[in-house]
Formats: sequence, structure tokens, C-alpha cells
Amino acid sequence: MKHGINTPEPPYYSVIFTSQRTDVDDGYVGLNDAVYMKASMLDGFLGMESFRDENGYGASITYWKTLEDIDGWSKNMLHQGAKELGKKKFYEHYKVRICKVEKDYEFNLENENG
Amino acid sequence: MKHGINTPEPPYYSVIFTSQRTDVDDGYVGLNDAVYMKASMLDGFLGMESFRDENGYGASITYWKTLEDIDGWSKNMLHQGAKELGKKKFYEHYKVRICKVEKDYEFNLENENG
Repeated sequence: MKHGINTPEPPYYSVIFTSQRTDVDDGYVGLNDAVYMKASMLDGFLGMESFRDENGYGASITYWKTLEDIDGWSKNMLHQGAKELGKKKFYEHYKVRICKVEKDYEFNLENENG
Repeated sequence: MKHGINTPEPPYYSVIFTSQRTDVDDGYVGLNDAVYMKASMLDGFLGMESFRDENGYGASITYWKTLEDIDGWSKNMLHQGAKELGKKKFYEHYKVRICKVEKDYEFNLENENG
């Protein structure tokens, strides 16, 4: 999974998806990959970062240009089908937070030493 | 690390801190724990979730009532000292995104079956 996303100057938007997985693995990785590949092809997609720990708790953060782009993703057919399957099989719990990124800054060690 | 934070109705704020660790472990875990224990005692702290994968890439997401609370955390002395140490020893790269959570929703499997 790609990390360390280059996003444009704020404001832009993020969707923080945190989840606790069930122990059902049947098709999960393939479905997850397909959903995020689809997301990356949609208008306004800026990037994503994804994490899951050894206890099945994870976060996927996607970045988008506008709230309308997030709405478009939310209504995407593949995404909607995946959500239904996710509720039936893959997730004990999830929470979605839709956020406006108001400010950002970063640090790169190589720039410090350069 | 605690997960699955109960936050109040939006709007509230989040700080998404993503980072790539160096391979220096000397004191990192203790410092990190101390910083987040301090954060949890500050005005407006609502919770935090933290993830790190096997390649040293991670995210810590903290939730706060207001932007002023985030500013207070940013100016905390322990936090400032930790940031300096982090740049010298612990991080190849980090990015901080300050966000307004505008909307949220969740799913709990036990409620579905209840």
C-alpha cells in the first residue's frame, strides 16, 4: 500500500475510515484492492494511506479535492456493493469521518541534511 | 493503544500525523507514550488512534474539540521537546494535517444482530 501521499495546498478533504475486522478473510484483500483501485480512478482522488495492526484494527485515509468528489465515491456502485459485503462479512465495527483539511506541514530528514 | 474512539457529534477537529520512522529505537516508545499521555490530559482532547505497519510507516490520529485546543497541544513544552528529538532521531519523514471533522457515521455488527 502506498504511503506518504503528496497532497496539494489546503483546503482539500479527507475521509478517515477506521475499522475492526472480523476473522473472515474470504475475498477481503481482493475486494479491498478493487475498491481502492476504483477510487483512484474517480474525479478528485488525491491519494490514500492504509494501516492495519496485528489485532485487526486499521485505518484507511483517502484524500479528495472536494466534498462532491467524496459524495461521488460514496455513490459508486462497486463501493456500495463492497460496503454491503463489508457489513455482512468483514467488519465488526467501522467509523467514517469526513474532514476538511485546513492546514498541513511536513518534515523530511533529507532536506535537513541537504 | 486504544482504538475505536467515541467522539461527539461533529463538528470537532482531528490531527492526522503520518510518519516514516528511522531505525533508531532508543527511547522512542517511552517518549511517544509520554507525549500522548500528556495530550490526553489537555483541554479539548477527545481521543486518539495509532497504527504502525511492519515497514515503520504509521499514523496517529488525535481528536480535539476546537482549533484552539490543537494550538495548545502544539505549544505544549513536552510536545515541543519531543518534536525536536523526533526530527533528530526518530523520523525520516512526517506530515501533519489539521482537519475539521464535518460529518461522521458508523457501523456496529452487534447492533445489526441485536
